[in-house]
Amino acid sequence: MSNQIFLTPGPSALYPTFEKHLRTALDAQIPSISHRGQKFQAIYRETFEALKELFELPDNYAVLFCSSANEIWERLLMNCVESHSFHLVNGAFSKKFYQFSQQLYLHSGHQTALFGEGFVLEDIQIPKGTELLALTHNETSSGVIMPEATIHQLATQNPDCLTAVDMVSSAPYPQLDFSKIDSAYFSVQKAFGMPAGLGVWLVNEACLAKAQKIEKEAKNRSTGTYHRLIDLWETFEKFETPETPNVLSIYLLGKIAQDMLQKGIKTLREETDLKAKMLYDFAEKTEGLEIFVQNPEYRSPTVIVINTATDSSEIIKKIATKGYVLGSGYKDYKNKQLRVANFPAISVEKMEDFIKVLDQSL
Amino acid sequence: MSNQIFLTPGPSALYPTFEKHLRTALDAQIPSISHRGQKFQAIYRETFEALKELFELPDNYAVLFCSSANEIWERLLMNCVESHSFHLVNGAFSKKFYQFSQQLYLHSGHQTALFGEGFVLEDIQIPKGTELLALTHNETSSGVIMPEATIHQLATQNPDCLTAVDMVSSAPYPQLDFSKIDSAYFSVQKAFGMPAGLGVWLVNEACLAKAQKIEKEAKNRSTGTYHRLIDLWETFEKFETPETPNVLSIYLLGKIAQDMLQKGIKTLREETDLKAKMLYDFAEKTEGLEIFVQNPEYRSPTVIVINTATDSSEIIKKIATKGYVLGSGYKDYKNKQLRVANFPAISVEKMEDFIKVLDQSL
Repeated sequence: MSNQIFLTPGPSALYPTFEKHLRTALDAQIPSISHRGQKFQAIYRETFEALKELFELPDNYAVLFCSSANEIWERLLMNCVESHSFHLVNGAFSKKFYQFSQQLYLHSGHQTALFGEGFVLEDIQIPKGTELLALTHNETSSGVIMPEATIHQLATQNPDCLTAVDMVSSAPYPQLDFSKIDSAYFSVQKAFGMPAGLGVWLVNEACLAKAQKIEKEAKNRSTGTYHRLIDLWETFEKFETPETPNVLSIYLLGKIAQDMLQKGIKTLREETDLKAKMLYDFAEKTEGLEIFVQNPEYRSPTVIVINTATDSSEIIKKIATKGYVLGSGYKDYKNKQLRVANFPAISVEKMEDFIKVLDQSL
Repeated sequence: MSNQIFLTPGPSALYPTFEKHLRTALDAQIPSISHRGQKFQAIYRETFEALKELFELPDNYAVLFCSSANEIWERLLMNCVESHSFHLVNGAFSKKFYQFSQQLYLHSGHQTALFGEGFVLEDIQIPKGTELLALTHNETSSGVIMPEATIHQLATQNPDCLTAVDMVSSAPYPQLDFSKIDSAYFSVQKAFGMPAGLGVWLVNEACLAKAQKIEKEAKNRSTGTYHRLIDLWETFEKFETPETPNVLSIYLLGKIAQDMLQKGIKTLREETDLKAKMLYDFAEKTEGLEIFVQNPEYRSPTVIVINTATDSSEIIKKIATKGYVLGSGYKDYKNKQLRVANFPAISVEKMEDFIKVLDQSL
């Protein structure tokens, strides 16, 4: 038994109730049930309803299951873009989404911010004819957020294009107004504290209509096969999936979403803010540490990136012997930064303890 | 605790050692480890090596992870077919694979056998110019197999096209000669006795070369994004994956494959044959039951389909009260057939007991 506390930006620490729900699922033989029966339909419905409440989804939204956020990027481009998507790129993951558009031979564009910087609303130039605007609430690689207000304004200012929001490593923290945007998505191995293997796609009827339009009008333009948005949506309407899905994870996600609802999303956000403040404050006042994201407005509450004066890999090694696993900086920043996930699985007390350990490890 | 025995053709009963390995994985915090670290690489390597031994894969094979067999169909068509695949269709799943080719606007063809019948080698006409030949070792919907010898002969007779074999609901039973074919695939929720959410793609360098050729020569023809075969293969070479994969399932699959190796694949096949014979013999001699697949040569050892004289749903309900969960007939045969999975998770003794229960339930 290793018993380390994972503060890695995904996969990360399991949600405290994860094992209890897993035990219940195994006792109820959830892994063996048919995905074409009423038991599975009830599970899908329950998970849908919990997520609908957690994210305050309007009635024109579906909750669809893919295998990863990578898959959702691909499906969004195949189903909601005939030719032009536009990507606000400020890190490795928003860049990868843009690159997917190139691999699909779309005529997409992007505007790029420096690594570690956010976008100023006034500087954003969205080309005419953009069909899908790809925004990132939380860039996992850089720890930069796009504030909800900016997301909402961009969506409102561009009513002719669909808006999709990456909240892979922040959901359910951001308070998105889903009546303003058209889609958002996340992976369960981040803030939901589950094993990887499920991507969750929140998507509205405008996206579905776009997929239908592409199929009707774009000659020889495929929207995919089993995970065409049209197929995903049709099966969703009876709480089924096109293929045999990750039934166990869909069940567990529903249970953890219910736990979050019971705790209260407001409390969850307040605790996240409190823990983030504790860690940012510590980094600010501590010699040898520096907050990477200069502008406080763009600092992520869920993925906190800290520059280290000395080789960060040595600090990470030292901290590991004291029971905490941290993320290193992304790619070029590997030995220069710590990336600390501040997900709901980590309590305020645990964050306090971690900060002490970090202090002793510098 | 429900404690029923699932004889459903997938999802199905969990492999007897599943929970033990899951416990070990949780104690070792496998769900939280990074997919970009040495621990994950060691897991991927171990699972690869176990599967390589189990299937006797030649050195030119990779083992790649997708989310389902449905996804593997799509990736095969996108990466290994520029224009023409050819599908031998004898049930719902081989038909769905063919339909995927149409959704991708390929110029594919098919030859169809009646539901419940197999293909006679001499009657198979593969068009010139076929790039990928899609064969099904075991049709989950009808319980019809294509014998290994037929698969090998078709592959040998058609050296200019790639051969891909669906063994979704039979692997690791079929004794495929992987030096003759180019790809095969399965899902873990069938004979490996795991929760759904992982599709396993065994694929050789000839398939990779085809994907490279398509990217080089076919103008504006996408092979996909994160799961382009080229990306999957490149990351496989360092035992990584393009995206965050289903780490936990990859670990568990390796452990169960090791258990199967320890038991011995020969023993596993002999037990499968023995249990299949017991059930087929019982169906043959029992009034009110009839083996669906007429020709013994085409009868699946792993998915046994039995016609019932009375409403099969009533029999299934009755048997459920005695602790066994059966599959119904596929679609039109829903109330006319029983589909019984004969996977390794079910012991000879359990199959004996089930046959007694079936006898009492007619």
